[in-house]
Amino acid sequence: MAWNEELNSNDRILMGPGPSNAHPRVLKAMASPLIGHLDPYFLEVMEDIKVMVQHTFQTRNHLTFVVSAPGTAGMETCLVNLIEPGDEVVICVHGVFGTRMVDIATRCGAKVITIEAEWGTAIDPEQVKAVLERSSPKLLAIVHAETSTGVLQPLEAISKMVRDAGALFVVDAVTSYCGTDLKVDEWGIDAIYSGSQKCLSAPPGLSPVSFSEKAVQALDNRKSKVQSWFLDLSLVKNYWEGAKRAYHHTAPVSAMFALREAYRLVMEEGLDKRFARHWENHLLLKSGLEAMGFEFIVPEGYRLPMLNAVKVPDSLDEATLRTRLLNEYGIEVGGGLGKFAGKIWRIGLMGEGSNKNHINMLLSALHQLT
Amino acid sequence: MAWNEELNSNDRILMGPGPSNAHPRVLKAMASPLIGHLDPYFLEVMEDIKVMVQHTFQTRNHLTFVVSAPGTAGMETCLVNLIEPGDEVVICVHGVFGTRMVDIATRCGAKVITIEAEWGTAIDPEQVKAVLERSSPKLLAIVHAETSTGVLQPLEAISKMVRDAGALFVVDAVTSYCGTDLKVDEWGIDAIYSGSQKCLSAPPGLSPVSFSEKAVQALDNRKSKVQSWFLDLSLVKNYWEGAKRAYHHTAPVSAMFALREAYRLVMEEGLDKRFARHWENHLLLKSGLEAMGFEFIVPEGYRLPMLNAVKVPDSLDEATLRTRLLNEYGIEVGGGLGKFAGKIWRIGLMGEGSNKNHINMLLSALHQLT
Repeated sequence: MAWNEELNSNDRILMGPGPSNAHPRVLKAMASPLIGHLDPYFLEVMEDIKVMVQHTFQTRNHLTFVVSAPGTAGMETCLVNLIEPGDEVVICVHGVFGTRMVDIATRCGAKVITIEAEWGTAIDPEQVKAVLERSSPKLLAIVHAETSTGVLQPLEAISKMVRDAGALFVVDAVTSYCGTDLKVDEWGIDAIYSGSQKCLSAPPGLSPVSFSEKAVQALDNRKSKVQSWFLDLSLVKNYWEGAKRAYHHTAPVSAMFALREAYRLVMEEGLDKRFARHWENHLLLKSGLEAMGFEFIVPEGYRLPMLNAVKVPDSLDEATLRTRLLNEYGIEVGGGLGKFAGKIWRIGLMGEGSNKNHINMLLSALHQLT
Repeated sequence: MAWNEELNSNDRILMGPGPSNAHPRVLKAMASPLIGHLDPYFLEVMEDIKVMVQHTFQTRNHLTFVVSAPGTAGMETCLVNLIEPGDEVVICVHGVFGTRMVDIATRCGAKVITIEAEWGTAIDPEQVKAVLERSSPKLLAIVHAETSTGVLQPLEAISKMVRDAGALFVVDAVTSYCGTDLKVDEWGIDAIYSGSQKCLSAPPGLSPVSFSEKAVQALDNRKSKVQSWFLDLSLVKNYWEGAKRAYHHTAPVSAMFALREAYRLVMEEGLDKRFARHWENHLLLKSGLEAMGFEFIVPEGYRLPMLNAVKVPDSLDEATLRTRLLNEYGIEVGGGLGKFAGKIWRIGLMGEGSNKNHINMLLSALHQLT
């Protein structure tokens, strides 16, 4: 392509680890004429979004907002605001995104203790218990849905231990959010971040975040400035809260229009129905894949409904097959990431993309190609 | 408004400090169906954008790309990648954005020397000369177009001094880029950032950035890790460059579609014609405003064509007038920022918004309201 050619993006069936397909209403909202980031109407849009972020996180947290950058910046927001140099923190690692949290926490000057589990398995609460008995960390961070392995991490038992240890409980919900149950208040989560482009089915580029009162206290009690100005919540919150609405940065207005519409679709469907839909479609995909010799790498009971990590049968060349799916059918599935590269597929059924037609298209295409 | 109401953004005439109005082609491109951030077609889109960023920055810099976050994150990208704790840096301050650079550089652990000029005036090269005689900084940073004051800062004399002193020359071009001449290579700029929502007239949320070879060397020679993982160019560049295209974060696909289209409009018009248009429209607005008693606060020769900072006549209540312009005419003009709050207006004529009809609408509305 060259710059003078007109944009002609193919109409892909997005069944990878995200982005997922957006509903036409979301694309339409995004194309609405621009308004200013301090326009009274835009402040109302922000307020609507905040209410819907609270509803979907199942929280009453006051400090609930959207970071003007992708999910990774949401991860960095939670960590840079809560960690000060020298703080001891515990990070659970069972895939790429736990590793990323360790990297960021280290850059914050934290003394990081890791708890590791084999890729494809969950962290065992007993491991957490053992570590908390011999340390007193400021926070413990864990990934709810490891996008690199397809593991759904149970959170409640670990949350209780973290709370009893007086630490903050930080959760990565990038892939789980709006696709499986996630009760921020009931489960005692102190800081949580997600992304717009997974089960929420908005375009990528934004990261919903929420902080509990306890996390806000930790923020208020900091001795040092947050190392990032752009992500410093003591500044960002003055744009999202209060009467003054102080300018901090220019919000991505169009992306926020799209996000509002994506949330409206979630509200209209209802969380319980949405979670049930994700689960039913996972089962439909599972039976079709298993019939063709694909094997789930995650033990039953720990599988993500929205991200199916499967071993491709040895008889098939996974890379060629993925390329043919993309080129001949317009279907994107995800390859493996990190140590799983070349070994597994990650098939996303996220948000708008969690539907029977996508599954049937994929299974039929696989039958024809193999 | 409530979440269940349909989005109904007014069709604003955006004559503030940004965002500016986007061309319908840009909004249409943004609403194109989503594709994956590692889709071969999306990598071509990125490559097209890179070529156009290079063209518009008038540079051959290899490390030229777009940060997946607003202009402020572009500022932070340049500073966190080039500064290590203990580095001496010089920052020129003649408005809000110079002050912001000082804040960020301080958070990077830099020893910051500031060079200050009265708000509404430019930094005098003699001031820079004096400071460079008694220091040996790693870099000097300056704002090309101070969005808070409307000053166009001449860069060439200062650039030569900085180069002779062996330092890196870092430039904020958020508001000047694509609206007035800016020759990155010829003027010896080592690191530069801009924003998508000013004279480029794409939606807010992205920040074009370019690093010279000398800046890349400084990056390669770092002893410590960049404090931000999200903005670490040693990681980001593996997504923008090379055969591998390693996953770093999920790029804002839709925003990039819009950005590509905004760049195509700039290419079709041509830089020289675009700069001339911005200048001519500035003159048209100027004569109309001066006839009504508005006074430019910046001396002639240092005025930005795309951001007109004017003192509102004492006989008028600036806040009421701005509100009436917005509510009765749908016209947004900017108020003062920082120490200029309540004292001046900032009237933007940026990108698509630099046109005679906008000017005529504003002037006629002002006549009717005063």
